[in-house]
Amino acid sequence: MDFNDIFSRVKSASREILTLTDGERSAVLLTLADRLEAERESLLAANAHDLERMDEANPLCDRLRLTPERISAIAADIRNVAGLHCPLGEEVEHRTLPNGIDLRRVRVPYGVIGVIYEARPNVTFDVFSLCFKSGNACLLKGGRDAEFSNDAAIAIIHDSLRRHGICTDAVCLLPSTHEATAALLGAVGYVDLCIPRGGRKLIDFVRDNARVPVIETGAGVVSTYFDGAADLAIGRAIVDNAKTRRVSVCNALDTLLVDSSRLGDLPALVEPLAEKQVEIHADRRALAVLEGHYPAGLLVAADEDSDWDTEWMALRMGIRTVDGVDEAIAHINRHGSGHSECIVTEDDAVAARFQELVDAACVYVNAPTSFTDGAQFGLGAEIGISTQKLGPRGPMGLREITTTRYLLKGHGQTRP
Amino acid sequence: MDFNDIFSRVKSASREILTLTDGERSAVLLTLADRLEAERESLLAANAHDLERMDEANPLCDRLRLTPERISAIAADIRNVAGLHCPLGEEVEHRTLPNGIDLRRVRVPYGVIGVIYEARPNVTFDVFSLCFKSGNACLLKGGRDAEFSNDAAIAIIHDSLRRHGICTDAVCLLPSTHEATAALLGAVGYVDLCIPRGGRKLIDFVRDNARVPVIETGAGVVSTYFDGAADLAIGRAIVDNAKTRRVSVCNALDTLLVDSSRLGDLPALVEPLAEKQVEIHADRRALAVLEGHYPAGLLVAADEDSDWDTEWMALRMGIRTVDGVDEAIAHINRHGSGHSECIVTEDDAVAARFQELVDAACVYVNAPTSFTDGAQFGLGAEIGISTQKLGPRGPMGLREITTTRYLLKGHGQTRP
Repeated sequence: MDFNDIFSRVKSASREILTLTDGERSAVLLTLADRLEAERESLLAANAHDLERMDEANPLCDRLRLTPERISAIAADIRNVAGLHCPLGEEVEHRTLPNGIDLRRVRVPYGVIGVIYEARPNVTFDVFSLCFKSGNACLLKGGRDAEFSNDAAIAIIHDSLRRHGICTDAVCLLPSTHEATAALLGAVGYVDLCIPRGGRKLIDFVRDNARVPVIETGAGVVSTYFDGAADLAIGRAIVDNAKTRRVSVCNALDTLLVDSSRLGDLPALVEPLAEKQVEIHADRRALAVLEGHYPAGLLVAADEDSDWDTEWMALRMGIRTVDGVDEAIAHINRHGSGHSECIVTEDDAVAARFQELVDAACVYVNAPTSFTDGAQFGLGAEIGISTQKLGPRGPMGLREITTTRYLLKGHGQTRP
Repeated sequence: MDFNDIFSRVKSASREILTLTDGERSAVLLTLADRLEAERESLLAANAHDLERMDEANPLCDRLRLTPERISAIAADIRNVAGLHCPLGEEVEHRTLPNGIDLRRVRVPYGVIGVIYEARPNVTFDVFSLCFKSGNACLLKGGRDAEFSNDAAIAIIHDSLRRHGICTDAVCLLPSTHEATAALLGAVGYVDLCIPRGGRKLIDFVRDNARVPVIETGAGVVSTYFDGAADLAIGRAIVDNAKTRRVSVCNALDTLLVDSSRLGDLPALVEPLAEKQVEIHADRRALAVLEGHYPAGLLVAADEDSDWDTEWMALRMGIRTVDGVDEAIAHINRHGSGHSECIVTEDDAVAARFQELVDAACVYVNAPTSFTDGAQFGLGAEIGISTQKLGPRGPMGLREITTTRYLLKGHGQTRP
């Protein structure tokens, strides 16, 4: 397969869609939402084909499965994106240099965004609508498990583009092969940004092999520190919400850090987790306090070599005892993944120190990490949550998949 | 050599300098400027040692050479950086979410910045002062040619840090070996950003081999398009300034694109270049017009396979004839490096089209690309000029080597 030919066609299309208005881009998305609902049965049939190939016991089945309700939800998401404010053309800066040159910095699309993802066919619609609304073409590389679903999805998207007379190269679904991944990661000059959406293994592979710029997203080893000056009721609510609201999301709590002066409150702090069957991996000091106060079958001695680095993605949580906020900060900066971290405290000075020294995209005081989310942050939609420092950090909406360009205007000034 | 031990000490130091005030950081830089002048002779002696090892005919000699004047200029630059506005702590955003959570996005340092550069000992002071002022620790990997100079430079920097009681791990000069480069590029978890400063080969090597986030800087294949509606006097001044002000800088003009309707003006347009001995590589149509009007010894038929992709870095320039602005835009988007591009025109609609469709960090109308520079843009100083779209784009000052962090404050709200 001639990947360079594909990449070059998508690059050309990225220039073509630059000249569309926001209204024209939104109209395509509204057509897409309608076509998706009209083509529901063909999409479900393709998805059934994928599901047949997967072992029913495979936990990925749930992610792969489309239902009439899920399709309606995807269509609603597309209509939502169509209605969002478009950040293109925004003036980030505008000033006149001393020599009279007019300098503006304006928001423009990246050009071509590559996204590598796993067995979630909804991502195909999701990524296309966010990229297209923000003026970007995209190269998609989905999982092999979702091949039939993704082919059906891209056919619906291409049909919608065609109905508006727009070149279908504005989005291209690559074959789900390793060759395609390798070509995408090496497409210097064609791909302006690559975003992996998936588990730790995929993210590490992309970061380690890409020659094009990458934003790492989604890996979340998340802690909450219950400080000496914490309010118990607030702590209970936060730990419960952050751990059990949804265990499979990246903002879910993995490690509870407890100040040693508050070990006496630990049984009450984690009590709401018992009825939800959360298995606790506690260090020696925490274990001693919890024994007899937490269901024995859910209490495990922590493996201090690995538990603190684990993103559980399950009804499991580590507990580690620390002596004060500085030990909590040191733990987080060593074991965290730079996603979201939280302190529960009524002491403003301690809260300020925690927020200054913890190195993560989102640092919370007295609020659970479950809020780290594009919609919760008011971004309208989200393509991922960046855990690196180069480029956007934290939840990424439309604005975060654009870049800027300096536009300068003079009348023949020259530089001495 | 145990690189992980070095990296981990620099990471720790990056956390220590987080707690310094801007005044404390600036005081270190003022001390450094003083110490640099006081230690001038020892630095010159070390530099002489490096120069002895280099063939005098090597064009790198000029970059490597320090003189009393150059050292005074470096000290002045350091004092200038000390006095710049510090972007740390700036609120990029501040709002209250509907649930009452207070959300702020504030400017924070990256943490550890790695810089790989060639035989320019001034870069050692330059990079350290910009990184330190913006709260970042740095890992420096200089060229083997400048080994003695860089060792002397780092000793002066470490001495200045020590005089203020600050851990010298805030800056570490790595050995100038391939092993050190490989370790730096693979230092995931330790290095938050890597910036190569040097020629195309170095930049490509870093981009192709890094596992840590990279900003590509400095490569500039730069064009100026002389439109059908261009003013000849403005065009003459711009082409002359962009090509001959300094030929070895990345914003220097490489290819002049001429609208075919203005070929008759070409001899007058390039006339100022003749006396400066600029060799012109012209396409067939331009060559026909120039013959007899430009010194024959300076006129060459362009090699259309390679000349348009060449960053000349010399008194050489390509000329290509195009039919209209769209052909100029297509040429630039195919051959440019995303640095700086210019159109000369009196037609506002054509200018707007050029600025909308040319994909570069800086797009000029009626002003020469020689203005692409941190100081000219009012940034005070510059660590490089980014030619990629992820992260800062164009000239990078202090603000561009910081990132942001979301700080959220609630009172026990939970997410439904």
